[in-house]
Amino acid sequence: MNPPAVILSHPQLGENIGAAARAMANFGLSDLRLVAPRSGWPNAKAAAMAAGAASVVDNARVFATVAEAVGELNLVFATTARERGIAREIMTPAEAAKRLRVASTRDERTGILFGNERAGLDNDEISLCDAVITVPTAEFASLNLGQAVLVTSYEWFRAGDATPPARLEHGQLQRKPTREEMLQLFEHLERELLVSGFLYPPDKVDGMARAIRATLHRARLTYQEVQTLRGMIVALAKGKHRVRKG
Amino acid sequence: MNPPAVILSHPQLGENIGAAARAMANFGLSDLRLVAPRSGWPNAKAAAMAAGAASVVDNARVFATVAEAVGELNLVFATTARERGIAREIMTPAEAAKRLRVASTRDERTGILFGNERAGLDNDEISLCDAVITVPTAEFASLNLGQAVLVTSYEWFRAGDATPPARLEHGQLQRKPTREEMLQLFEHLERELLVSGFLYPPDKVDGMARAIRATLHRARLTYQEVQTLRGMIVALAKGKHRVRKG
Repeated sequence: MNPPAVILSHPQLGENIGAAARAMANFGLSDLRLVAPRSGWPNAKAAAMAAGAASVVDNARVFATVAEAVGELNLVFATTARERGIAREIMTPAEAAKRLRVASTRDERTGILFGNERAGLDNDEISLCDAVITVPTAEFASLNLGQAVLVTSYEWFRAGDATPPARLEHGQLQRKPTREEMLQLFEHLERELLVSGFLYPPDKVDGMARAIRATLHRARLTYQEVQTLRGMIVALAKGKHRVRKG
Repeated sequence: MNPPAVILSHPQLGENIGAAARAMANFGLSDLRLVAPRSGWPNAKAAAMAAGAASVVDNARVFATVAEAVGELNLVFATTARERGIAREIMTPAEAAKRLRVASTRDERTGILFGNERAGLDNDEISLCDAVITVPTAEFASLNLGQAVLVTSYEWFRAGDATPPARLEHGQLQRKPTREEMLQLFEHLERELLVSGFLYPPDKVDGMARAIRATLHRARLTYQEVQTLRGMIVALAKGKHRVRKG
């Protein structure tokens, strides 16, 4: 899966190039292309801001024009904030990410073009691109260059990411308990709650026990936690007997 | 829809607080809470970095401890990069955003807790939270504080955003053509291409015309563009006749 190139047209500040590089590296992008960077290249501030993403900065290539920078690519999207006069397709970063991945499976080379900090992309630059990406925002809309690169890179990664939406951290003893182990916990707890007089009166006992089981199910306990709870029950029950005897 | 509060625990640099505020404002979040900011508060660098998001910075509240900062909230997620020893639920920002919105529809107050730049959140801070958010990244993982706030804020906005994945910019003359207008374009073009000898030999004409129609359909032309194309056909056909006459 060939990630898209990131092309920065006439970027002004090294810090922003570095922030873009760092954003890219976090989400698996590495091909950074700079069109006539205003502060020259290489740039110490870019390297500093990139933090661990030095290789992205070190391997960045400089071009004189956007046309040269995107020359060998098959699919290029322009990132803009404002609506323009000409009829063109405008996509969310999520939709763009899907299309970039589809193109990549066909071995097409892809890229995302970003304008400079002050003025964004001009219409000539946009007209070199297949379509436009606009990041949906609230009424206040002031994404800077690094933030725009971050959101689009994040969406590219996200579109191919298999991380489950939610999971439990599992260590050695953190396997899920079996149904039998859960039942032993319930029976142990209910036995002690009956002895202690908490489960009372008799005609309410079943309903109360079911409510307690629902609470414990909702916690999605690990095996380790089931063992810990049973230890707590033993300890509390012991203490209670001692108080009664005293 | 009540957006989540953003709680920054012991943030070190004003610039990062400002970047977080700017990220929040872009995606409709406004409740910023600072726990013992190292450089004091208010902070000129935070205000500068926030750019247009000054109101988020101006309205930020300072607390002495995380427990106080999250005190009145009903649902709090902790953002961490590393896996920890204790069994807890870890979610993607997208899943977290869904749950925050569900909670918000129940009028629950929600928040997202971020650790400081150097060390992230400690286990005591995490134990004040319902669950953990981890941003999925490539092998290189080095999201800074502002970037982490940006991704989670973006996902919150995205989860409630109705922007169509792709759309055409439409101006006054940029309505979609009717089927009849498209057919008139095809017939005009095919007539001229027959006269000019491009559509030839006769037994290939139908297949060639269908291929041209498919190309034009794929362009999803606006009404204005259909008119422009018809003007181009007229102009090109005229030029050709003139050459032949000369």
